[in-house]
Amino acid sequence: MLIDRDEFNRRIDHIKSQMAEPGIPALLISDNANKYYVTGRVFDGYVYIPLEGPVIFFIRRPVELEGDGVVYIRKPEDIASSIGLNVPEAIGLELDVLPYSTATRLKNIFPESELKNASGVMRRARAVKTPAQIDMIRHSGIKHVHVYSRIQHIFQSGMTDMELQVEIERVSRLEGCLGQFRISGDSMELYMGNVLVGDNADAPSPYDFAMGGAGLDPSLPVGACGTPIKPGNTVMVDMNGNFNGYMTDMTRVFALGEISPLAIEAHKCSIDIHRTFCDMMRPGVLAKDLYAKAEEMVKERGLSAYYMGHRQHAGFIGHGVGIEINELPVIAPRSRDIIAEGNVIALEPKFVIPHTGAVGIENTYAVHDDHVECLTPAPDEISYFDV
Amino acid sequence: MLIDRDEFNRRIDHIKSQMAEPGIPALLISDNANKYYVTGRVFDGYVYIPLEGPVIFFIRRPVELEGDGVVYIRKPEDIASSIGLNVPEAIGLELDVLPYSTATRLKNIFPESELKNASGVMRRARAVKTPAQIDMIRHSGIKHVHVYSRIQHIFQSGMTDMELQVEIERVSRLEGCLGQFRISGDSMELYMGNVLVGDNADAPSPYDFAMGGAGLDPSLPVGACGTPIKPGNTVMVDMNGNFNGYMTDMTRVFALGEISPLAIEAHKCSIDIHRTFCDMMRPGVLAKDLYAKAEEMVKERGLSAYYMGHRQHAGFIGHGVGIEINELPVIAPRSRDIIAEGNVIALEPKFVIPHTGAVGIENTYAVHDDHVECLTPAPDEISYFDV
Repeated sequence: MLIDRDEFNRRIDHIKSQMAEPGIPALLISDNANKYYVTGRVFDGYVYIPLEGPVIFFIRRPVELEGDGVVYIRKPEDIASSIGLNVPEAIGLELDVLPYSTATRLKNIFPESELKNASGVMRRARAVKTPAQIDMIRHSGIKHVHVYSRIQHIFQSGMTDMELQVEIERVSRLEGCLGQFRISGDSMELYMGNVLVGDNADAPSPYDFAMGGAGLDPSLPVGACGTPIKPGNTVMVDMNGNFNGYMTDMTRVFALGEISPLAIEAHKCSIDIHRTFCDMMRPGVLAKDLYAKAEEMVKERGLSAYYMGHRQHAGFIGHGVGIEINELPVIAPRSRDIIAEGNVIALEPKFVIPHTGAVGIENTYAVHDDHVECLTPAPDEISYFDV
Repeated sequence: MLIDRDEFNRRIDHIKSQMAEPGIPALLISDNANKYYVTGRVFDGYVYIPLEGPVIFFIRRPVELEGDGVVYIRKPEDIASSIGLNVPEAIGLELDVLPYSTATRLKNIFPESELKNASGVMRRARAVKTPAQIDMIRHSGIKHVHVYSRIQHIFQSGMTDMELQVEIERVSRLEGCLGQFRISGDSMELYMGNVLVGDNADAPSPYDFAMGGAGLDPSLPVGACGTPIKPGNTVMVDMNGNFNGYMTDMTRVFALGEISPLAIEAHKCSIDIHRTFCDMMRPGVLAKDLYAKAEEMVKERGLSAYYMGHRQHAGFIGHGVGIEINELPVIAPRSRDIIAEGNVIALEPKFVIPHTGAVGIENTYAVHDDHVECLTPAPDEISYFDV
């Protein structure tokens, strides 16, 4: 596999430490994001992780992979003979993401074993990043920041939201952005992120995203809609930061000409929430307390009507990020998550101001023992395009 | 909803005609592709389709949608009260794509109903396109062809595969390509299609794609890998053709300087298979007979070792296309599909020639009563880049 043995063992330990409590003696994982976490690459097949005994990699494609514990199979039922007599009492499958038919077929490989949901095990294991993973995210952040630093120069007078987005996509792809935007669960669809201009930020989307956008087409009703960038509008850029399989999430705001004082005030509130959180996000803090603190700051300034949307509001202001964009912990009112060392969290207190557009910034932070590290360091202020 | 009533009724009739035989009296669909098929837009929610009685649209997000049969819900369990006493004997869910946990939760809304798999119903209904759908695909095809016509002018000497791909992506996006590449099932991942140069076409991928490619990163091991385009290489372009929610699938081959006679011969074989299929693909023909005919033509010319891959071979040469890239029918050796009027089929007999690269073309065809219509009409021959 593609990660070194120490790092592999560290990740397997993360997983095993989560298996004991729900009483899952063995996992069979097949989700691409989880396979990438464990092995450092994506393949068609399965990883079998027993609490006791060696990890086995069952591979269908690509041909010609080699390594300890690699077993080539033609179909999932071939797994049974490798497990042999060591049938576990229960088998954990990723039931929150595996299609029902696939899960049923995999369960039938273990007719005597109880079926358990391993999605939580994998989500919790992946919530705490290893130093090597944080380093991958740090490298994505450096490129992400570099791409954003060029947006001022990319903008040309008369552009639509989509024209600006396409040029950012190009610069980002040439910088090495992989494009792929992994979202756990297959119901949320998004392409390369969002550029939201003016009132399009207020168009309700089908997804629990912080900001919406009508999109170009009803088959993908989110994001840029082809609207021209006009004086008095804000331009919120929230684009894909996946440069190596691990991603940062980052938002900055641009504007053409003067914008409303309310928008400027709301943007300042977002920055203040970030600063407050940089002091508060320490191991042991409750995610819901963070959410409450931000809400209190917003309420004090009379900005609640615009907070996390205006016509439609999102139910969270932060989320774990790594291989996927929606990892743990979640900073939401009823979150049970507790901030831990090794969490990587995208924080996105945003506002939609009618007739102006979206404001607020998003940064990705790594939580260390005694401080948080900003992985997307860039100027916080609204950048004004040259007219 | 966004499609007119006659078209809506036509699509519902397609679905209902598939429900009778497997004995499914009601469907609850939630997959984005299927919701888009039925309603012409994507939303967060469900569509309830009983064999008898009105269709109901259960919507969570976005806010503010209106229409006959629209019921806003907060959670799936709210569906129960709208169904009331009309509980169906069996409920069909998309078990091939719905996560196990989601399917179980939805099934529990109907505690007395038997659970049935509705994935086949929806796949078969969607395999036969309405004239309005074919028209959507035709429009994507026009734009797809236009983008490809510019590739000759986009190429610059010294480019890598990825640099060429990024510039094609840009032109395609500015032409209105939505980017989103819908693949049924969530295990195959691909970003905006593939540009495969030289021996990278022979790098095995984890997916059952006709061609592989090592990719830029092990987290997305498919497609362009950053290799320079060199004399003697072919450049196979197989990029996203989704311009309106419906897509065409199209491949053309470019080359820099002279290429091997074997590659030219294999490319000609691909074109001949297309011509043969244009005569053969008529309603009532067995998909597996088409596959066998192509295989026979390849064998006669002694090209089997390179056909549909060289180090790793794909198991099909054609597939339905529409909202998703992998629809019915499938042109494969053990396919049970029968070609029908209204099918839209991407045909992709391709070859990988060691030291040269991939050759062969892909077109998308609509099957009519007495002819097939090419929806991606463009020159078949290899185009040579100006040096």
